[in-house]
Amino acid sequence: MKFKLLILLLFLGWGVRAQNYAADSMRIKGIYDLALTKGEAYRWLDDLSNKVGGRLSGSPEAAMAVEWAQQVMDSFGLDSVWLQPVMVPHWVRGEEEKAAIFSEATFGREEVNVCALGGSVATSPEGLRAPVVEVRSFEELEQLGESGVRGKIVFFNTPMNAKLISTFHAYGSCVGYRVNSASRAADYGALAVIVRSMTLKIDDDPHTGVMHYRDSSKKIPAAAISTRDAERLSRALKHDPNLEFYLKMNCHVLPDVLSFNVIGEIRGSKFPDEIITVGGHLDSWDLGDGAHDDGAGCVQSMEVLRLFRESGYQPKRTIRAVLFMNEENGLRGGIKYAEEAKRLGEKHLAALESDAGGFSPRGFSVNDSVDVVEYLQSYLSLFEPYGVYMIRAGYGGADISRLKVGGTTLIGLLPDPQRYFDYHHSREDTFDKVNPRELHLGAGSMASLVYLISEYGIPKKMKKN
Amino acid sequence: MKFKLLILLLFLGWGVRAQNYAADSMRIKGIYDLALTKGEAYRWLDDLSNKVGGRLSGSPEAAMAVEWAQQVMDSFGLDSVWLQPVMVPHWVRGEEEKAAIFSEATFGREEVNVCALGGSVATSPEGLRAPVVEVRSFEELEQLGESGVRGKIVFFNTPMNAKLISTFHAYGSCVGYRVNSASRAADYGALAVIVRSMTLKIDDDPHTGVMHYRDSSKKIPAAAISTRDAERLSRALKHDPNLEFYLKMNCHVLPDVLSFNVIGEIRGSKFPDEIITVGGHLDSWDLGDGAHDDGAGCVQSMEVLRLFRESGYQPKRTIRAVLFMNEENGLRGGIKYAEEAKRLGEKHLAALESDAGGFSPRGFSVNDSVDVVEYLQSYLSLFEPYGVYMIRAGYGGADISRLKVGGTTLIGLLPDPQRYFDYHHSREDTFDKVNPRELHLGAGSMASLVYLISEYGIPKKMKKN
Repeated sequence: MKFKLLILLLFLGWGVRAQNYAADSMRIKGIYDLALTKGEAYRWLDDLSNKVGGRLSGSPEAAMAVEWAQQVMDSFGLDSVWLQPVMVPHWVRGEEEKAAIFSEATFGREEVNVCALGGSVATSPEGLRAPVVEVRSFEELEQLGESGVRGKIVFFNTPMNAKLISTFHAYGSCVGYRVNSASRAADYGALAVIVRSMTLKIDDDPHTGVMHYRDSSKKIPAAAISTRDAERLSRALKHDPNLEFYLKMNCHVLPDVLSFNVIGEIRGSKFPDEIITVGGHLDSWDLGDGAHDDGAGCVQSMEVLRLFRESGYQPKRTIRAVLFMNEENGLRGGIKYAEEAKRLGEKHLAALESDAGGFSPRGFSVNDSVDVVEYLQSYLSLFEPYGVYMIRAGYGGADISRLKVGGTTLIGLLPDPQRYFDYHHSREDTFDKVNPRELHLGAGSMASLVYLISEYGIPKKMKKN
Repeated sequence: MKFKLLILLLFLGWGVRAQNYAADSMRIKGIYDLALTKGEAYRWLDDLSNKVGGRLSGSPEAAMAVEWAQQVMDSFGLDSVWLQPVMVPHWVRGEEEKAAIFSEATFGREEVNVCALGGSVATSPEGLRAPVVEVRSFEELEQLGESGVRGKIVFFNTPMNAKLISTFHAYGSCVGYRVNSASRAADYGALAVIVRSMTLKIDDDPHTGVMHYRDSSKKIPAAAISTRDAERLSRALKHDPNLEFYLKMNCHVLPDVLSFNVIGEIRGSKFPDEIITVGGHLDSWDLGDGAHDDGAGCVQSMEVLRLFRESGYQPKRTIRAVLFMNEENGLRGGIKYAEEAKRLGEKHLAALESDAGGFSPRGFSVNDSVDVVEYLQSYLSLFEPYGVYMIRAGYGGADISRLKVGGTTLIGLLPDPQRYFDYHHSREDTFDKVNPRELHLGAGSMASLVYLISEYGIPKKMKKN
């Protein structure tokens, strides 16, 4: 009798599971169908990229972006849309930078393509001219020491590693030179640093990005140089080690500005106090229009909510789209959001970020326990028809990272990574580089995962915290 | 004793397998590393796209492409390089096509973007002007019958299905309208057909491609119309069913031309009589420069041989790169190659084609028995570090299809399919749409699979024939 009961229960269990699977599979197909045939994300991204444009924290464009995002989220019947105030830094590039190589021994004067790194101080108004010393690593800098560096410009010429299949790994192992080299070189008496742009492409576009000064170090100007000009400068230094480099930048820091995270919410029908956020960052660098970084993540996040509304799906848990302000040079929006969540005692079950470009989705990376990763992997077969084949342990995203201490499962969308750093932080990050189907497949993938977590939660005992 | 022997053999077997696995894994890493850091395919594709350009069969550019490909293959020390003669059709577009909508009831005259379909006859020199009837399917054409069609231009306005994740499936279910509609409509007395371009993108570029006439039907002109103009024409017809369409084309067929498949070979060290081919097609449509279709497949195929040479790998089996002529409008090169293989009694173990664009590789599709598919799937873990996660039953490729009767395992490279039909057969298929890392990852994937088949073969008993 007991045995028969077990069999019966097993059958019932399988039955329910199979029934759920079929229903989930149909629901997910409905989400993707809607995203691919009636997606709004691409049209929104066109507006954000081409009507608002590049939107560095504190800029008038960033303020426009806040207003624009609020209007969009107000337009499709969410339960609530609000602005979360946050003070953000306000660094401005000023006039376009100028730079040139002077080599009396060879070609005379040649202009090169540079841009100030975000947060850098300016040169003097007339610019800076000094000899150059090239290094490939911080170890080489240390070996040179003060005698090799004082009074010079240090040129960090470390290419990203092309052998790494994930360009994000290549970026991660190289970006320290952009972020930290100014203070490291200043401590040896350098006058400025120029850093090879963080991209695998050889072209004329300098790629900006954030840099930090140590409080204890002198602040010296820091610029990125295009990869082609980095190779040119390196060759020129071999022919003429006494060449000089001219650099003029008038970027500067203004007082902090009041800005906002933009938040939209559908309230959960069954567990309204369990929140799942889906987000990207609304600010971008100023050189391009920030279409891939991270306009794509913003419109995809809003699209998740719109797809739920349009498909008539009422989530069991509360779903929030959060467009974070100031990821690029401060993370103030992400920090503020997590602080407020803690202050209000909100329970954030999971947070999903899209901040790796609007390319064809390939999977998700999950920052939580092995048990949670495996639990989410059990959904993989539901995603495979859509080319999403990988759920693995890994990084969630910068904006959501501060929710970690509250035990939130952090998840990052993993799009195809090959093209991202061709555009990242440069004037090439523009709307025309985004493909509507790739963008909408990403939105559909995010909505489908959020749907599953909303329906079934994440077992608490599996979580790290 | 017997049991112990069994255990011993199992251990030895596992040992060999593990040793092989480690060696294969390192060899494959070496192939990808080389492709990503010293790949030549992208530079070759630049030459083919920008120095040779569009290269429709029979054109001077196609002849230049043959010469160029032979020179490239002669440049890196293959065992032999040769040209295989084949007579190919020679259709020429002539002057740029003209088309307009005339609607006295609404806007007067509006020009629209069209191009002749490959193989179409011309209109009369002064062009053709007639009323239009729109259909969405052959069933609708039949329902209209002769009374609804005679004396009119039939407008086939069937969009590709955006819900299909593989754009190739969407294309496959729609391309029949491009290929067959002229004769179907002519049988009801139509004067011409205009067919909605085979793309999911809404833009102004008409997409050409091959069409066929039935011998028994009257030959009427056939043109593709851009998707945006297809939607415009459809709207205009709703407002004014009596509008007229003007079409002028002076394309025509010239006598067949002598052309060539271009073949390069590394002779196998152990099983020289077992041949593995890797190929793409050298001809392209004339509107763009044929970078994705199929310049990419050609340079990747040559790159497979070059990667073997540069890495010092001596294949056990014979590896051939075959650049087929005339895939687009005749398949004469593919037919000729298979005929010659049969005549010479060559044993073609496997044939791998890349003809789906130079995008990030995702997998391979295999046209052979389930056993062979599963056998090749056992290699998947070797590919996963490189983002290649899928080996499935499916289509090999048009050029290699005629080798099927000889029992050859046919394999197609599966790149990410989302962008391909944005460019396919239109003026947008140009070199700037190709990303070097994506192209080189494809070449590395092809070389790695060819390496494995060259080392271990494919068990004969598994094969269909």
